Amino acid sequence: MRAVVIRQLGDPNVMQLGELPTPIPGDHELLVAVYATSVNPVDTKIRQGRRPRELPLVLGYDLSGVVVGCGSQVRGWQVGDEVFGCPNVFRHGANAEFALLDARAAARKPRTLDHLHAACLPLVSLTAYEALHERVRIRPGQTLLIHAGAGGVGHIAVQLAHLQGCRVITTASRPETIAFCRDVLKADAVIDYRNTDFVARVKELTAGRGVPAIFDTVGGETFTRSFDCLALSGHLVSILGGDLGPTAASFLYRNITVHYEFVGARVAYDQQPERHGEILTGIAQLVDAGLLQVHVSSEWALDNLAAAHREIEQGRTIGKMAVRVRAD
Amino acid sequence: MRAVVIRQLGDPNVMQLGELPTPIPGDHELLVAVYATSVNPVDTKIRQGRRPRELPLVLGYDLSGVVVGCGSQVRGWQVGDEVFGCPNVFRHGANAEFALLDARAAARKPRTLDHLHAACLPLVSLTAYEALHERVRIRPGQTLLIHAGAGGVGHIAVQLAHLQGCRVITTASRPETIAFCRDVLKADAVIDYRNTDFVARVKELTAGRGVPAIFDTVGGETFTRSFDCLALSGHLVSILGGDLGPTAASFLYRNITVHYEFVGARVAYDQQPERHGEILTGIAQLVDAGLLQVHVSSEWALDNLAAAHREIEQGRTIGKMAVRVRAD
Repeated sequence: MRAVVIRQLGDPNVMQLGELPTPIPGDHELLVAVYATSVNPVDTKIRQGRRPRELPLVLGYDLSGVVVGCGSQVRGWQVGDEVFGCPNVFRHGANAEFALLDARAAARKPRTLDHLHAACLPLVSLTAYEALHERVRIRPGQTLLIHAGAGGVGHIAVQLAHLQGCRVITTASRPETIAFCRDVLKADAVIDYRNTDFVARVKELTAGRGVPAIFDTVGGETFTRSFDCLALSGHLVSILGGDLGPTAASFLYRNITVHYEFVGARVAYDQQPERHGEILTGIAQLVDAGLLQVHVSSEWALDNLAAAHREIEQGRTIGKMAVRVRAD
Repeated sequence: MRAVVIRQLGDPNVMQLGELPTPIPGDHELLVAVYATSVNPVDTKIRQGRRPRELPLVLGYDLSGVVVGCGSQVRGWQVGDEVFGCPNVFRHGANAEFALLDARAAARKPRTLDHLHAACLPLVSLTAYEALHERVRIRPGQTLLIHAGAGGVGHIAVQLAHLQGCRVITTASRPETIAFCRDVLKADAVIDYRNTDFVARVKELTAGRGVPAIFDTVGGETFTRSFDCLALSGHLVSILGGDLGPTAASFLYRNITVHYEFVGARVAYDQQPERHGEILTGIAQLVDAGLLQVHVSSEWALDNLAAAHREIEQGRTIGKMAVRVRAD
């Protein structure tokens, strides 16, 4: 099969289109003809060597496609089914004509979306769902701070929070991302974090109390400074995280919870992978009901992935970048 | 009224028996004739200046007694009721003939316990309950590591974990605390942490996986090292906490949650204080049904509190130290 392979770490040019054997599904796996995949920041981190993996490797941890083979223990799926889901993030991804999915963690593609849009949903919607609903356990009426609302994870998180009856404060920095958060996502407040101190602004918006929950999709200083506008008994969930920063000594009396969210855990560590199937089924229902939109800002071809990586590394994407593998 | 007052920070001798005006209950408060209170580590930390407070101050954040007055908004309580609960940890405690309780956060004294034993329950049982059930959300069948099982919080936590259908590994160091954990609490495994590396032993007991939940009641190195035997997607809850230590960079891929538990938050910050009333009502039911025991290892008098503080500071207590204020 045709696949984009990295055989060494480095800049985007290490991704080379070549031939690999078509994979053989394990007991619980589906072999899927990939129609589309997407680019996520994790792809560039693996490529750069910031997330250790064995090489050679095929990146691309999202897919939408059609089942062409089933492992011996697979139940409920048959050849010809349209499917979307995330390949195991420690194994080969979907930058290829065929890829494997854990059948338990996959779901029927939303019927109202083409493969290109469906392929942009799994990783970001599973991440946002787990972070907000399984880790923080957001509740109606809460005001949340969701960083980078115009990002891939962020734009789904803002919508899921609204669907739960939460108010959302989000951050953005460019005129077009600020406009997207305000006009498309209808965020309740958008903080231009380059020109405004987000901590001070969140406190101002919450009468000094801070917010009960924060979703950090940015890391670094955004992670550590966010604690300064987290309310008493607040939860902060990060998909990057690290050390807690200078205010950790205050966390006890503030009754704080910190969650490190790694969406790859369920499938990679075999921790109830069927939860991902359930969540994606719910995501598809929301999409088909018109309650959740995935925003695809650009479309790429398999033989042009290096350019796509350069684009996402500039951090200027709104929503998602789709990759077409087969014609729909 | 007679009260033990600290007017300056320092060694146990700063606690002086003297006279203070009897307090006047606020709208939601009960005025309680204190029959008994208990000594908790937080008393000594406040006295030493490690937990900032305004002085002068009466310590003692547990009580069992009889209602002698009710604030204007109090519902469901009347003069003469027997009550147990925790005074607000930022205000005057119960080392005095009278003390105030938030009526919403208090509960009927267990009918099968005298005041001396009842006064040893509120702070440790609320702490253990919140840590295990509200923060970690322990589930039947899990194996937990609960540090210092012979301690005040620890001995209640081990019992609550067993009542939830969990297995419990605990730590202790002296022959008598090891025997208490093994023979009285029936812990499933007791690690002599002075002579055994608890991380290595927990891994050995869990086939290398570590435990899904850890309750740290010790802090310092016990807190930071515990992460090394926390399973993937594990929760660690600490009542001391601080910085995460050297392995924090691994927490993301391990999908870890860290909870800082401060039992004083609900009443001090007015965050659903009625939850404490509900929890203590449940604790009283467990006690009256013979399912939960509070272990009182020594009894002290109000005029001998300095000696009690010296004793708890040596860290050699098993279970709780009770303080008699009035004859039962």
